[in-house]
Amino acid sequence: MEERQSLLDTINSPEDLKKLPVGQLPEVCRELREFIIKELSENPGHLAASLGTVELTVALHYTLNTPYDRIVWDVGHQAYGHKILTGRREQFHTNRQKGGISGFPNPDESPYDAFIAGHASNSVSAALGMAIAAKRQHDERLIAAVIGDGAMSGGLAYEGLNNTSEYNNDLLIILNDNQYAIDRNIGGFSRSMTRISTSRHYNRFRWRAYLVLKKLGLIDDARKSRILRFMNGIKCLFSSGAGNLFDSLDIRYFGPVDGHDVKNLVKVLNTIKHMKGPKVLHVCTVKGKGYTPAEQDATLFHAPGKFDINTGQTDHEVNDGTQPIKFQDIFGQTLTELAEKNEKIVAVTPAMPTGCGLHTMMNRFPDRVFDVGIAEGHAVTFSAGMAKEGLIPFCNIYSSFAQRAYDNIIHDVAIPRLPVVLCLDRAGLVGQDGVTHQGAFDIAALRCIPNLTIASPIDEIELRNMMFTAQHLADRPFVIRYPRGKGYVVNWKNEMELIEVGKGLCMHPGTDLAVAAVGPVGLTILDIISELEEQPGAPRVAFYNFRFVKPMDTALVDEIGQHFDRVLTGENGAVQGGFGSALTEALEERGYHPAICRAGLPDRFIEHATVAEQQAMCGIDKESLRRRILELTTK
Amino acid sequence: MEERQSLLDTINSPEDLKKLPVGQLPEVCRELREFIIKELSENPGHLAASLGTVELTVALHYTLNTPYDRIVWDVGHQAYGHKILTGRREQFHTNRQKGGISGFPNPDESPYDAFIAGHASNSVSAALGMAIAAKRQHDERLIAAVIGDGAMSGGLAYEGLNNTSEYNNDLLIILNDNQYAIDRNIGGFSRSMTRISTSRHYNRFRWRAYLVLKKLGLIDDARKSRILRFMNGIKCLFSSGAGNLFDSLDIRYFGPVDGHDVKNLVKVLNTIKHMKGPKVLHVCTVKGKGYTPAEQDATLFHAPGKFDINTGQTDHEVNDGTQPIKFQDIFGQTLTELAEKNEKIVAVTPAMPTGCGLHTMMNRFPDRVFDVGIAEGHAVTFSAGMAKEGLIPFCNIYSSFAQRAYDNIIHDVAIPRLPVVLCLDRAGLVGQDGVTHQGAFDIAALRCIPNLTIASPIDEIELRNMMFTAQHLADRPFVIRYPRGKGYVVNWKNEMELIEVGKGLCMHPGTDLAVAAVGPVGLTILDIISELEEQPGAPRVAFYNFRFVKPMDTALVDEIGQHFDRVLTGENGAVQGGFGSALTEALEERGYHPAICRAGLPDRFIEHATVAEQQAMCGIDKESLRRRILELTTK
Repeated sequence: MEERQSLLDTINSPEDLKKLPVGQLPEVCRELREFIIKELSENPGHLAASLGTVELTVALHYTLNTPYDRIVWDVGHQAYGHKILTGRREQFHTNRQKGGISGFPNPDESPYDAFIAGHASNSVSAALGMAIAAKRQHDERLIAAVIGDGAMSGGLAYEGLNNTSEYNNDLLIILNDNQYAIDRNIGGFSRSMTRISTSRHYNRFRWRAYLVLKKLGLIDDARKSRILRFMNGIKCLFSSGAGNLFDSLDIRYFGPVDGHDVKNLVKVLNTIKHMKGPKVLHVCTVKGKGYTPAEQDATLFHAPGKFDINTGQTDHEVNDGTQPIKFQDIFGQTLTELAEKNEKIVAVTPAMPTGCGLHTMMNRFPDRVFDVGIAEGHAVTFSAGMAKEGLIPFCNIYSSFAQRAYDNIIHDVAIPRLPVVLCLDRAGLVGQDGVTHQGAFDIAALRCIPNLTIASPIDEIELRNMMFTAQHLADRPFVIRYPRGKGYVVNWKNEMELIEVGKGLCMHPGTDLAVAAVGPVGLTILDIISELEEQPGAPRVAFYNFRFVKPMDTALVDEIGQHFDRVLTGENGAVQGGFGSALTEALEERGYHPAICRAGLPDRFIEHATVAEQQAMCGIDKESLRRRILELTTK
Repeated sequence: MEERQSLLDTINSPEDLKKLPVGQLPEVCRELREFIIKELSENPGHLAASLGTVELTVALHYTLNTPYDRIVWDVGHQAYGHKILTGRREQFHTNRQKGGISGFPNPDESPYDAFIAGHASNSVSAALGMAIAAKRQHDERLIAAVIGDGAMSGGLAYEGLNNTSEYNNDLLIILNDNQYAIDRNIGGFSRSMTRISTSRHYNRFRWRAYLVLKKLGLIDDARKSRILRFMNGIKCLFSSGAGNLFDSLDIRYFGPVDGHDVKNLVKVLNTIKHMKGPKVLHVCTVKGKGYTPAEQDATLFHAPGKFDINTGQTDHEVNDGTQPIKFQDIFGQTLTELAEKNEKIVAVTPAMPTGCGLHTMMNRFPDRVFDVGIAEGHAVTFSAGMAKEGLIPFCNIYSSFAQRAYDNIIHDVAIPRLPVVLCLDRAGLVGQDGVTHQGAFDIAALRCIPNLTIASPIDEIELRNMMFTAQHLADRPFVIRYPRGKGYVVNWKNEMELIEVGKGLCMHPGTDLAVAAVGPVGLTILDIISELEEQPGAPRVAFYNFRFVKPMDTALVDEIGQHFDRVLTGENGAVQGGFGSALTEALEERGYHPAICRAGLPDRFIEHATVAEQQAMCGIDKESLRRRILELTTK
């Protein structure tokens, strides 16, 4: 058998790619796709999105002069192919691992990564700025933004598009539309023909997709949300007679073209890339393209974990009930329980119904869960509107994405004191998603806002009680922050009970040091303390679970102030301005001046790694905290 | 002469309005308009916007059953007529004054104020939530959102519209389009006819407006920004053949109708108000309508201060050069100076070119200033894109509006460490605009973010030096916050010089107390100290102007920690998590435990009043600070 040299192995930069004749590009795509599937089956990451952009990636690097020309990826997990073609093939097995390459484009990692892309919808604004800067500096470089249809529901994308035709620039926007699954090549890109054909095909596709999804019982999860977003967000693109959004914003529109016909993509890109003025190319791709299991279940294969390439069997952990489940599942199941009894409860999610656990409630009460697409600001203001008229909305947003709703929280919820229950999922360290996704800043950013109640449960039972309390009171804005991933309690399904707002607990008495914390880091501290208990002569450490960052339990503050001259605080969040800072303020205000040491996330962005590794990097793992406690008690 | 009873005097609620025959409504409008003009000529406020909505306001309250039905005003300063008709006519002379009524709709003030409306673009999201809540609760109440064309450039408005047709609701959206100045009635509202006629009229208007504005030399200020926003944001509404935005988002569209024909508005509203499903009514109004000086210069009469009704002469203060000028003018003139020498400098404003002082640079370098419309998130990300390609953008946003760009600052600027100079105007207390506009939270929210430099000048000279330093270094994200209004220095035009980043100053030595501050509150403290100096036996107070919240000057921290056991901090910002909190953390971290007292904005939203009154309310006026200093030095 003759040994065949892989084409991909010869490509160490786009320069190498450009040496190949266009006829070999389909083979490059095939190999690239295989490479991604193989790597991802062993090293978990985002699979389906990057499979959909294989041809687009190859075509872009073949036709553009990167890194001089810039590709700005929107939502970076479509960019694995890009990483592999730009000198990171050999390192790709380190994807998302500590010290390895990032799962998102990162300009610090490579000059080919033109802009950061962890949060959706920023590509047009950033690329427009880059295009205008190029123009102003008489620079010929071409700037391309690649935005997915999902990201088009974000207001930032509209704000960017709205300004695109205002200024002198030659921006190329690629709309990577991975819902519109065309199954044949579209040879040209005449605008009028295109509009007619897309309208016909779109409507046919939409109907078929609806039937298939309904049959599969998938209409209620992430897929539905994507389709809803697609249908409403991009609808003007396809409505026959209504022209399209880009046209009406004065951006030249081309397409749609088959995003899996690499030779045609090259032809199209070569034709339009030097046209003056902003322009959009509408490219239709299939999420998971080329790997049947992923095509059939793009949601499962969005980030499937390890899987068997041949069978498509994913390596899902089996939980026989002897293991704690995720905080996300606790949230979802608890909210469903509460909603059974309190018909005022509704739920809102910006495009994360599965991720945050709301699918449980969606199944039970489909008309009481609102997936609003990637639109965090709207999610909060919309919740505020519902609260104003007497409903009790649980608005669930990942902590780092809630940064986009900061003004909405202040202006639409806190000032009018509306009873929105804002559940901040993935608060604290999040692991492999890295710098852009850490839920680091919520406590520091929110605790300065008047009228907010901010709670942080130590475990699942406390989460449930806080949720119960929030909907029972329903008289104030109530923030509950909790981390990503598994909890700590197997028998979590307690009879829920009221918690006094602003009341913490002394969970362990002591004399030598007071440790005060919010969130599950408290469990780690309790662990350390009970281990110390067993050591003769070890320090006697008190532990206070404050439960609430705001209002702060002043009785506990007094107790600590009166009995301790050393205090350690712990939190899974930024140490600057966080819970420890709040406790320091409170102690000062009440006239106590103990020595205070604060443990939490340091003043730098935390790179991708496992959560355990990140905890160690930040000094909030068990080992570091034990060391800290011993240092403070032996000084 | 017979005494004529005013109609307006008989209207103490919309109930009274409804008793009148429709034929008397034009007279009500006339009186309402006169009342607004008279009141505003004596008690400054927002004039032109509310003059434009007189007929719309009367028609809405005539046809809807408020307060059971809800009117959600977007950008509240169009709602003066609404306040006057809903029981606040007698109090209207207290508008924006301490203890008086708020300049914006405020649900705490009146059940007729359905939602808060200080920041633009939130009406559709909030009203959609309210409409869905009504529906879910089998409530027949009608919800109307009144959104201006300016607010349509905000992403939040798009996010809301994008979701409107998704859910079961009967929302009525009124687009108050006050740029499209039609001058005749449009009798009906057939959709197709409308589209043709608006397209024709719009294009004619656009051209005329351009010529007129250019001739008046107004094309470079706020007017232009509004027109640009109008042209690009709403363009799809008017482009013939391209349908309109609302249609394509599946929201029924009616209009446009003449917004100053109250009888026709009543007819139209009665016809469409009970139609099922979401719908939009496009109403064309003239900003400043009915008062010639305001119609002729809607920018000047947006918030004209006191004016002579007969002549339209505004009561502008004359500054003969012996008075300090505004921080805003210092900013604008300084940036123009810097831009003369550094061609990499560009400027970005979200719709506030006049308010923030950028008109100076716009006149000098029109193609280096980007007014992006009300789109704060985009303003920051767009700036980041320009910075990525080598420009030095000064992005100027009012502190309270920058809350909308919080994620953009973190994700697009801080993580990639891009040299965007973020100038936060109106940081701290802002006076009559009240709760929604206070620039209270920027220090607390931003100081937890890694990679940021945060500066706060004590006066105009320091502002200039900080701006000079930021563009000179151009190697990091640089935040400069400064307050609204007049500065303190007459001869402000110094030769600018570099400031060492993170370096503060001891501006007065002392032994009994250390006062540490950022911003102009430091000048008040210096004043107090020099007055104390003259009193025999008075305490010797040291003053430290830190200049930077981040990085913090650790040498100064050590100096304070080593020499003082009492510290007072001062800032014009939230005391929770603010500069004082940062200094407390720094002292703790470095092992000092003085008693620390923090002066700044307390943990509540600060109502409208003058800045001086608000300073007193917050304890950061001279009197309160002196008292505080004396308390701390006599204990």
